[in-house]
Amino acid sequence: MGNKSPEKNEMQLAILEQGGTQEKFVTGDLWIALELAAECKSAGYPGTLIPYRCDLSNEEDILSMFSAVRSQYSGVDICINNAGLARPDTLLSGSTSGWKDMFNVNVLALSICTREAYQSMKERNVDDGHIININSMSGHRVLPQSVAHFYSATKYAVTALTEGLRQELREAQTHIRATAWQSSSPERVLSVGQCISPGVVETQFAFKLFDKDPEKAAAAYEHMKCLKPEDVAEAVLYVLGTPPHVQIGDIQMRPTEQVT
Amino acid sequence: MGNKSPEKNEMQLAILEQGGTQEKFVTGDLWIALELAAECKSAGYPGTLIPYRCDLSNEEDILSMFSAVRSQYSGVDICINNAGLARPDTLLSGSTSGWKDMFNVNVLALSICTREAYQSMKERNVDDGHIININSMSGHRVLPQSVAHFYSATKYAVTALTEGLRQELREAQTHIRATAWQSSSPERVLSVGQCISPGVVETQFAFKLFDKDPEKAAAAYEHMKCLKPEDVAEAVLYVLGTPPHVQIGDIQMRPTEQVT
Amino acid sequence: MGNKSPEKNEMQLAILEQGGTQEKFVTGDLWIALELAAECKSAGYPGTLIPYRCDLSNEEDILSMFSAVRSQYSGVDICINNAGLARPDTLLSGSTSGWKDMFNVNVLALSICTREAYQSMKERNVDDGHIININSMSGHRVLPQSVAHFYSATKYAVTALTEGLRQELREAQTHIRATAWQSSSPERVLSVGQCISPGVVETQFAFKLFDKDPEKAAAAYEHMKCLKPEDVAEAVLYVLGTPPHVQIGDIQMRPTEQVT
Amino acid sequence: MGNKSPEKNEMQLAILEQGGTQEKFVTGDLWIALELAAECKSAGYPGTLIPYRCDLSNEEDILSMFSAVRSQYSGVDICINNAGLARPDTLLSGSTSGWKDMFNVNVLALSICTREAYQSMKERNVDDGHIININSMSGHRVLPQSVAHFYSATKYAVTALTEGLRQELREAQTHIRATAWQSSSPERVLSVGQCISPGVVETQFAFKLFDKDPEKAAAAYEHMKCLKPEDVAEAVLYVLGTPPHVQIGDIQMRPTEQVT
Ligand SMILES: NC(=O)c1ccc[n+]([C@@H]2O[C@H](COP(=O)([O-])OP(=O)(O)OC[C@H]3O[C@@H](n4cnc5c(N)ncnc54)[C@H](OP(=O)(O)O)[C@@H]3O)[C@@H](O)[C@H]2O)c1
Ligand SMILES: NC(=O)c1ccc[n+]([C@@H]2O[C@H](COP(=O)([O-])OP(=O)(O)OC[C@H]3O[C@@H](n4cnc5c(N)ncnc54)[C@H](OP(=O)(O)O)[C@@H]3O)[C@@H](O)[C@H]2O)c1
Ligand SMILES: NC(=O)c1ccc[n+]([C@@H]2O[C@H](COP(=O)([O-])OP(=O)(O)OC[C@H]3O[C@@H](n4cnc5c(N)ncnc54)[C@H](OP(=O)(O)O)[C@@H]3O)[C@@H](O)[C@H]2O)c1
Ligand SMILES: NC(=O)c1ccc[n+]([C@@H]2O[C@H](COP(=O)([O-])OP(=O)(O)OC[C@H]3O[C@@H](n4cnc5c(N)ncnc54)[C@H](OP(=O)(O)O)[C@@H]3O)[C@@H](O)[C@H]2O)c1
Repeated sequence: MGNKSPEKNEMQLAILEQGGTQEKFVTGDLWIALELAAECKSAGYPGTLIPYRCDLSNEEDILSMFSAVRSQYSGVDICINNAGLARPDTLLSGSTSGWKDMFNVNVLALSICTREAYQSMKERNVDDGHIININSMSGHRVLPQSVAHFYSATKYAVTALTEGLRQELREAQTHIRATAWQSSSPERVLSVGQCISPGVVETQFAFKLFDKDPEKAAAAYEHMKCLKPEDVAEAVLYVLGTPPHVQIGDIQMRPTEQVT
Repeated sequence: MGNKSPEKNEMQLAILEQGGTQEKFVTGDLWIALELAAECKSAGYPGTLIPYRCDLSNEEDILSMFSAVRSQYSGVDICINNAGLARPDTLLSGSTSGWKDMFNVNVLALSICTREAYQSMKERNVDDGHIININSMSGHRVLPQSVAHFYSATKYAVTALTEGLRQELREAQTHIRATAWQSSSPERVLSVGQCISPGVVETQFAFKLFDKDPEKAAAAYEHMKCLKPEDVAEAVLYVLGTPPHVQIGDIQMRPTEQVT
Repeated sequence: MGNKSPEKNEMQLAILEQGGTQEKFVTGDLWIALELAAECKSAGYPGTLIPYRCDLSNEEDILSMFSAVRSQYSGVDICINNAGLARPDTLLSGSTSGWKDMFNVNVLALSICTREAYQSMKERNVDDGHIININSMSGHRVLPQSVAHFYSATKYAVTALTEGLRQELREAQTHIRATAWQSSSPERVLSVGQCISPGVVETQFAFKLFDKDPEKAAAAYEHMKCLKPEDVAEAVLYVLGTPPHVQIGDIQMRPTEQVT
Repeated sequence: MGNKSPEKNEMQLAILEQGGTQEKFVTGDLWIALELAAECKSAGYPGTLIPYRCDLSNEEDILSMFSAVRSQYSGVDICINNAGLARPDTLLSGSTSGWKDMFNVNVLALSICTREAYQSMKERNVDDGHIININSMSGHRVLPQSVAHFYSATKYAVTALTEGLRQELREAQTHIRATAWQSSSPERVLSVGQCISPGVVETQFAFKLFDKDPEKAAAAYEHMKCLKPEDVAEAVLYVLGTPPHVQIGDIQMRPTEQVT
């Protein structure tokens, strides 16, 4: 998630998905930020990375983060809902708390950040913002892996939320156009409601899913050449780089060797 | 949800979805129960209806209901996850509490009841049980109605949960067969993982969605001849009446006049 | 497919899917007819079965069949598009002719019959007709079985055709209502656009798919208790038995033991 | 579709979708070729464009085109199945010939080209080829536009064919690996089975659909800022540019202003 001041072409990135210490930055989402920062730099802009600590399962934390971004950087222009997790709680015998953890980050935090990012864009008349959800192939088909079934349900919800968001924004535009929150150029509308649905990416994901069995986690990434966080970052950059009249609804991507 | 003693062919129905007073019985789920009870009666069985008060957004309430059913009727054989609600909280400006309410009943309570019903069946070696989710057409496509977008996301989750449940049970069978929880007849396996996806049904649903605007709610059912709760009940009875080797994955049904 | 005269409550069934000799009647579709005929009989109606020879891959044959039904029985009221086949032609090395065979019956004949049945209903102001497509679970997800990939593509097409048909009829009604092709009762509209999507059914299907390897074909039905044609017929009867305001969009059904 | 000689890094593009005169080149597919050619040039390769006349609704024409490419350029490395059309034949009253025309190009020609391109890659041990289907958003949801219903069915078929192709190739690899048709590097596998699903693109498409009503056709592109062929070409280039271990299954893209 970031704050891009369109006038000055500066990009200050504040990664919002950080739950813990600064070391925890070395996760998928950091890659997206790093690539964006590098891209900014190579394009001559003073892109910087501003880590922001925030527990996304706590709504107050999210709201104060958005407040801070607002007071310090005026607001949010690009929101990449990347944070997410799986817990190994099956449907037949899982614990309720594991299910709740997945819902709270994968669905609820994503929804709160989306709403806050949209409100931030709206109040500043930003009309070329982006809200990109990092969904999953598990948001499109249910694999026969019991430990991933509830996770898959949360990602199915993300599939619906992405399409719902796309629709609400089209509707809002129509309304907004009448009330003059609309730039001079008719093509400048918010390209929100986009998602990227990767298959297996080599990250900390499996190590958190199987937190009591690191060998099992490592094995998840060993039998094939997985996607790398950079590959997802490249897809995000492709989406961000499309012209304003192009809306990427979904990019489904997998390791070439992935069977399922 | 009910307790059917297969030996004695008795059916005592305990409607679990009741959150409030006895008047609240007059809802969709009651119809299913009434039809089941009537069917029992006409088939010569002493079917009765035992209302059970339980707030499904409270896990302890659910667990003590299952305890009560266990101690009084030995356990649950048929679980119809029918309770559900919509709140008018859009994605762009909805309240977090409205979103939580929908998740808590539509997804979490359904998941808890499913787990508890399965455990109840398993401990008594019931091998012809049913778990039927009342999903929605909104679990299959996102309508351009902002007030229903988050609701739709919860129903997308139900679509995934139904398929996940079907798969887990197939897997469990394989395992269970080895440990002798499997009846003599190979065809006697639990037909869980089924759902019914109705379009507009004339119930209290819209009156709870638009609780501040009863006229708007009434209007939702006026422009066409809607499904009736009995129609959904008939679909449930069709599912319950199929032989053990038949698994109905989903029945998608709409009012003939429904456009969307 | 049948001709039901609503006034006299007679049912004369003309099974349209017969490509060959009378022996070939012993296929899935016959079961639907037999069950309908039995049901008619037990309800006191003089239901009869009139086999009609017709090669569905030949448009002229279809059109003359509809002509014959028209001149002899006034027209068609219920159309069950059941005929279908799979050929073992994979995408990487299949023969073009195998692909064409599948398209011609599964998609094109179904579309022609649908159009002719609709026109027949329309010209006689039939407003409680049915057009039911026998789709497949392969119309909803692509299984990792190369020999079924092109077949699956034809059934995906059927999924779209069923939904398209539902929409066109809603649209036609609106128009027709204005031109007085609409009965007095607003609820009497054609319940077309319905489909049933079975998993594995024990029929001649696999024997035609693997026509050079009957053992392989037999094996397809041996490792589990499959659906029987009667189970599909029961689903058709359930659909036909719903009241006019109920539209069943899709029934997805599988053998309880089917994994995929 | 093109012939890329990996050794010499030369790219000779043969646009296969040309059915008529050279003027007809100014269509969507040409843009992809032009962009590829420009990209080649700017990367220092002698990319050229070799138009090839071929009626895709004629299998012999397709086969002789592949023969010609084989004898002149050794074979095909990248196959972009872009040719496609819609005819305004509805389900309730369309002509059979219109339906056939759509099937012949959108489904059958795509399948034949896919098979021939795969065989061409296989016989030359090409292991970084691409087969990209230009699908449509209409391959994912059925819009309430009667004139597009059969077209939508053909694109649903493309959705299934893309996934089927992905699976067959995974399977082929496994087998092929054992028989040594597999390069030294395990990551070098064919990235086939990819598709791009655009919403409305401003091309000749609508003018062919409504060939008797050019004003209606023009109107289809007037009420919003549509996708341009270049936007689809950019998506193709993004897909072609991903590293060998990345498989883009689908990119769904729409004009930002498109409602449906
Ligand atoms: N890896 C895969 O195979 C795969 C495949 C498809 C989709 N995805 C999706 O990709 C996204 C990123 O996952 P990943 O693979 O990069 O996994 P990861 O390495 O575990 O990273 C997950 C990120 O989410 C953050 N996060 C989790 N809970 C949080 C909370 N309560 N508050 C703040 N931050 C929190 C983590 O921060 P901390 O480290 O500080 O906890 C971490 O930065 C997720 O949405 C996931 O569902 C992953
Ligand atoms: N009506 C439609 O158009 C429609 C369409 C598709 C699907 N559905 C689904 O059909 C199902 C039944 O809905 P309905 O149309 O019959 O709506 P309804 O008339 O509002 O009935 C909902 C039922 O859920 C119960 N419930 C809600 N929250 C509860 C809680 N916390 N604890 C216990 N019970 C609770 C309600 O009990 P109280 O009355 O005591 O609160 C009521 O019995 C839902 O899953 C809904 O999503 C409805
Ligand atoms: N069996 C399964 O596992 C399964 C699963 C899902 C869906 N389905 C679907 O169920 C439907 C019925 O198939 P089935 O399983 O009953 O297979 P089946 O035993 O092979 O029956 C197919 C029927 O289609 C008829 N047919 C085929 N081509 C024809 C033509 N050109 N002209 C006239 N009739 C023709 C056959 O008639 P002749 O015998 O005279 O050729 C036969 O009556 C098909 O749409 C199939 O796709 C089957
Ligand atoms: N335009 C849209 O809104 C849109 C949206 C989604 C997807 N698409 C898809 O995009 C693809 C390209 O369509 P387009 O929009 O670029 O339409 P277009 O301008 O009409 O181009 C279609 C191309 O297909 C070729 N073609 C058609 N039939 C052929 C045949 N029998 N033999 C050889 N070539 C044939 C045409 O060649 P000739 O000109 O020589 O006939 C033309 O080059 C199609 O698959 C279409 O379904 C289009």
